[in-house]
Amino acid sequence: MLTRIDHIGIACHDLDATVEFYQATYGFEVFHTETNQEQGVREAMLKINETSDGGASYLQLLEPTREDSTVAKWLAKNGEGVHHIAFGTADVDADAADIRGKGVRVLYDEPRRGSMGSRITFLHPKDCHGVLTELVTSAPDESPEH
Amino acid sequence: MLTRIDHIGIACHDLDATVEFYQATYGFEVFHTETNQEQGVREAMLKINETSDGGASYLQLLEPTREDSTVAKWLAKNGEGVHHIAFGTADVDADAADIRGKGVRVLYDEPRRGSMGSRITFLHPKDCHGVLTELVTSAPDESPEH
Repeated sequence: MLTRIDHIGIACHDLDATVEFYQATYGFEVFHTETNQEQGVREAMLKINETSDGGASYLQLLEPTREDSTVAKWLAKNGEGVHHIAFGTADVDADAADIRGKGVRVLYDEPRRGSMGSRITFLHPKDCHGVLTELVTSAPDESPEH
Repeated sequence: MLTRIDHIGIACHDLDATVEFYQATYGFEVFHTETNQEQGVREAMLKINETSDGGASYLQLLEPTREDSTVAKWLAKNGEGVHHIAFGTADVDADAADIRGKGVRVLYDEPRRGSMGSRITFLHPKDCHGVLTELVTSAPDESPEH
């Protein structure tokens, strides 16, 4: 069961400049940064609010680390902007199986590692009215490793 | 001060079909529907979670009601997908003035009426790393008029 907006993923060309924009314009602070080699992105998580399911909602700013990454290709086609949205669930495996059973394409056979040790999968945007949609289960210990 | 992700605005061609997708796939329910003649949209708000500032986070599904509306033009260019993101604040006037003072273009001189009696304004996406960004102050009585 999806119980929160976990994050909004925003693709950018220059992570440091984009973090600076969000900090200077809105006062949002960096909660966590990491590089995900598998996804080919360097990212910053800005925590915006906590949520009624015990989690939180973040902006996830994404800069590609290599030209063949999915985000690099997306940026080349679309320019900077909202790349995906993510819903939080206590059980990404169960929700992914349930949603696959409804005929929506789930992009990974098994959930993979996402931000802060979470487990994630993605749904095909063509099956979701144009929205690349991520499902996230946070790590049991959500404390960020800065 | 922006204290929550208020909503993610998603443009679609067929509101009823898109609502049906979100309901059938994820179990999200319609919290409120309305038509905003000024914006030229028919919309459905799906409440996803409550937030630590006393508000909530929604998906806002938007179908254009006329071909010259901003959302209709956006859909013709981009197809279905995430149209904008919105941050909630207790004082949209103060935040819009503050952000304008930082050199970001604010699209309205004064906030206008948004969903459920809220007061809203937008920031120019070219000043926000490609993200059309809305600021929202909820109506004092947020109860929806279905």
